[in-house]
Amino acid sequence: MAKEKKAPRPRAQTPKGFRDYFGTEVTERAHMLHTIAGVYHRYGFEALESSAVETVEALGKFLPDVDRPNEGVFAWEDDDDGWVALRYDLTAPLARVYAQHRNDLPTPYRRYAMGPVWRNEKPGPGRFRQFYQCDADTVGAPSVAADAEICAMLSDTLEEVGIPRGDYLVRVNNRKVLNGVLETMGLSDDAQQQAVLRTIDKFDKVGESGVRELLGKGRLDASGAYIDGVGLSDDQAAPVLAFLTSKGADAAATLANLRAAIGGSAIGAEGVDELEQIATLLDAGGYGSSRIEIDPSVVRGLGYYTGPVFEAELTFEILDEKGRKRQFGSVSGGGRYDDLVKRFTGQSVPATGVSIGVDRLLAALRAKGRIGGTAQGPVVVTVMDKDRMADYQSMVAELRNNGIRAEVYLGNPKNFGNQLKYADKRESPVAVIEGGDEKARGVVQIKDLILGAKLAQSASLEEWKERPSQYEVTRDQLVAKVREILSQWA
Amino acid sequence: MAKEKKAPRPRAQTPKGFRDYFGTEVTERAHMLHTIAGVYHRYGFEALESSAVETVEALGKFLPDVDRPNEGVFAWEDDDDGWVALRYDLTAPLARVYAQHRNDLPTPYRRYAMGPVWRNEKPGPGRFRQFYQCDADTVGAPSVAADAEICAMLSDTLEEVGIPRGDYLVRVNNRKVLNGVLETMGLSDDAQQQAVLRTIDKFDKVGESGVRELLGKGRLDASGAYIDGVGLSDDQAAPVLAFLTSKGADAAATLANLRAAIGGSAIGAEGVDELEQIATLLDAGGYGSSRIEIDPSVVRGLGYYTGPVFEAELTFEILDEKGRKRQFGSVSGGGRYDDLVKRFTGQSVPATGVSIGVDRLLAALRAKGRIGGTAQGPVVVTVMDKDRMADYQSMVAELRNNGIRAEVYLGNPKNFGNQLKYADKRESPVAVIEGGDEKARGVVQIKDLILGAKLAQSASLEEWKERPSQYEVTRDQLVAKVREILSQWA
Repeated sequence: MAKEKKAPRPRAQTPKGFRDYFGTEVTERAHMLHTIAGVYHRYGFEALESSAVETVEALGKFLPDVDRPNEGVFAWEDDDDGWVALRYDLTAPLARVYAQHRNDLPTPYRRYAMGPVWRNEKPGPGRFRQFYQCDADTVGAPSVAADAEICAMLSDTLEEVGIPRGDYLVRVNNRKVLNGVLETMGLSDDAQQQAVLRTIDKFDKVGESGVRELLGKGRLDASGAYIDGVGLSDDQAAPVLAFLTSKGADAAATLANLRAAIGGSAIGAEGVDELEQIATLLDAGGYGSSRIEIDPSVVRGLGYYTGPVFEAELTFEILDEKGRKRQFGSVSGGGRYDDLVKRFTGQSVPATGVSIGVDRLLAALRAKGRIGGTAQGPVVVTVMDKDRMADYQSMVAELRNNGIRAEVYLGNPKNFGNQLKYADKRESPVAVIEGGDEKARGVVQIKDLILGAKLAQSASLEEWKERPSQYEVTRDQLVAKVREILSQWA
Repeated sequence: MAKEKKAPRPRAQTPKGFRDYFGTEVTERAHMLHTIAGVYHRYGFEALESSAVETVEALGKFLPDVDRPNEGVFAWEDDDDGWVALRYDLTAPLARVYAQHRNDLPTPYRRYAMGPVWRNEKPGPGRFRQFYQCDADTVGAPSVAADAEICAMLSDTLEEVGIPRGDYLVRVNNRKVLNGVLETMGLSDDAQQQAVLRTIDKFDKVGESGVRELLGKGRLDASGAYIDGVGLSDDQAAPVLAFLTSKGADAAATLANLRAAIGGSAIGAEGVDELEQIATLLDAGGYGSSRIEIDPSVVRGLGYYTGPVFEAELTFEILDEKGRKRQFGSVSGGGRYDDLVKRFTGQSVPATGVSIGVDRLLAALRAKGRIGGTAQGPVVVTVMDKDRMADYQSMVAELRNNGIRAEVYLGNPKNFGNQLKYADKRESPVAVIEGGDEKARGVVQIKDLILGAKLAQSASLEEWKERPSQYEVTRDQLVAKVREILSQWA
């Protein structure tokens, strides 16, 4: 009789571009989100958790990054609702939520949201298809006071999660100023305006001379490919470059340079006035230029936003993958976008907000050694006699009731070496041992595993003898002795 | 010229069966998850956050609820990985994660996971297609000490989130005992065994007499439909009913009853021994029968699990939707399932765990008034003169720097009544007012809005006069006065 053919075993693998997070990766992020939520709460923002799934029509095509394909979502057809998709950011759902619930929400509505978003893109190194976003937005407030508030909150948030003043800078620009520059240039052709916007977006990468070439005839890029230019003459391109490089020694100087760059444009003047108001409001709140500054070279998202634009940058240096020093760079961006709700209601609703790249911010704190030290594992109570599991169980209960992280060894207890290997893998600071002999004498052995590891690494024979890493105490001294050892290593 | 036809506006609506969570709905859940994570951490469990998306082959067909359709997932075809789906629980991903990472994980591996899961089912009232699960599992520990630990942890968790001792009970049963009963009955036909298991699963709903009818000829249910029975004789059905009702006055009595019910079955005896060991271990840890008890009437998931089964029930009464008193019921369930990882690796790996219904637990705490009191809104600094926004901005900055939740009014300040209506909608405890006159005199007006509302509801004219709800203080007294008022209402 032929043997029945079995189905092949499933591969134990996440789909491409997805990953799992373990231990401190999860708890450090949770802790950071908790801290950020605290700051947002203090600013009067309310939590919102919208559903992960939205109808495709509600999501629309509002990806802030112009280079991304509109199709970059995970979508499927639902029996009830037609095509639905996983949210690709937290802004599009906010527009839907505000349109749906606007009669019950206060105006202005300040909300924050934190959670995973999904992008159906080719994954790459460090580029995942599911990642966290953490947003705060104010809907229904036309005044730049709302923008200034977001900048102040961003500054407070960075300091509260552990980036000290001086290690970050919130930079503010304004799309309206750029519009004024384009108007002054007489660049009214929409396609050409878009081409200029796309070019400006590369300022971070290619610098002033690169932008000059790309606004003109074109540029040979690093890979040797020739990129066609927008086709402006040097004279035509000059105001754009003046705008991008108009940062002065202080806010007043920058604003003066900008006023020169916009010529007689009304929308440009409005933009410069807004930047001036923002600077004044922030000064009044104690947020000087060492924390937040006007900087016209901020270009990210300038094509997407309609007014003020913000970016938070970490200014300290780290070593990149090739060992070269470089600035850590941007961890947050945002700005004003006044048309998002209009799709649903027909009415234009002013909105401004910011998104923090939580995973990048965590990476920054790790790079600076501010988080991610060795996490303390649990105290491990070893099992010397498996018929006395109840004794060991009562020890861990006692330790836990005293607030000490503790577990009993639950693997096969036969080989004691395996138990100590397990404790090592768990990064346990302390192991507790109670064999039959100890039980009879009413004592327990307590091993200081951290000291033991240190001694094993470097101690001389004399030190070994002088500093024992194992102690015998009476059973009722268990908690006190463990606590004493833990307090040394805390 | 014909008018251009516009695309219709998108509906601002979540897909059916999905919803949004606002304000305290979000923060109360976050707080509860944080508390639960603290208990799990103390027990040595490590956080795990697996990806929301899994390959369909990795998910398999392991829904614990036997009545659910296997198709109940949201799935789509991916270019790289074939069919992928949103996770429907946190157990199937754990099996995949353990199989994928087993060489890097400690054995046993204790992990907890919290997050949304998705079910593609017909939504109903209070039944959503996205909801939270909060699981803890131990993988690789064959001993019932692992099951006992889960029960103890569940008990501690309930108390720590605010369910006092006496208001809950963790009940423990064992699938092996039932297997012993079926063996004793001589019921070796697999289809008939499954039919008995399905019938037992209805014990909660139809009670002893209902199960008796369903094991026999059949039963007329409440809707008038006739449900066919399994077809056992009364004598044949008796051991099953003896098993279900074998709970005695204490653990010893219950265990004696169970030993009688299983006759000479070896697997049954193993099950009863396990229950006895669990009871002994829990007693040693201080978890007496007022917190955790052996109860053979626990039937949920008995068809799914392979050994000990647990359920946490809240024992206090609430009023149901028709105003009748009823016990709140189950908020958590779990048990031992030894075959989950085998699909991937071919090796059987013992596992035991528990899942807490976070949303039900929150509902219970709300029903008991332990959470969900009126959340305190922010102090609202009103805008009397919109050219002095910087003054108001510096007030809120000062309040926030002193840890007080505060915001400046960012709507159109023209109508002062609207500002107070806004403060009301925000449930603000205090409004701050500084008009031109106050500014000139160096003072601010501080309105106690909670006292104001109370007085408006019930005060006599005398009380109104005696207890003013508005105070004038000098500008430098702002923080102190606001703090004084807030402390009254904290």
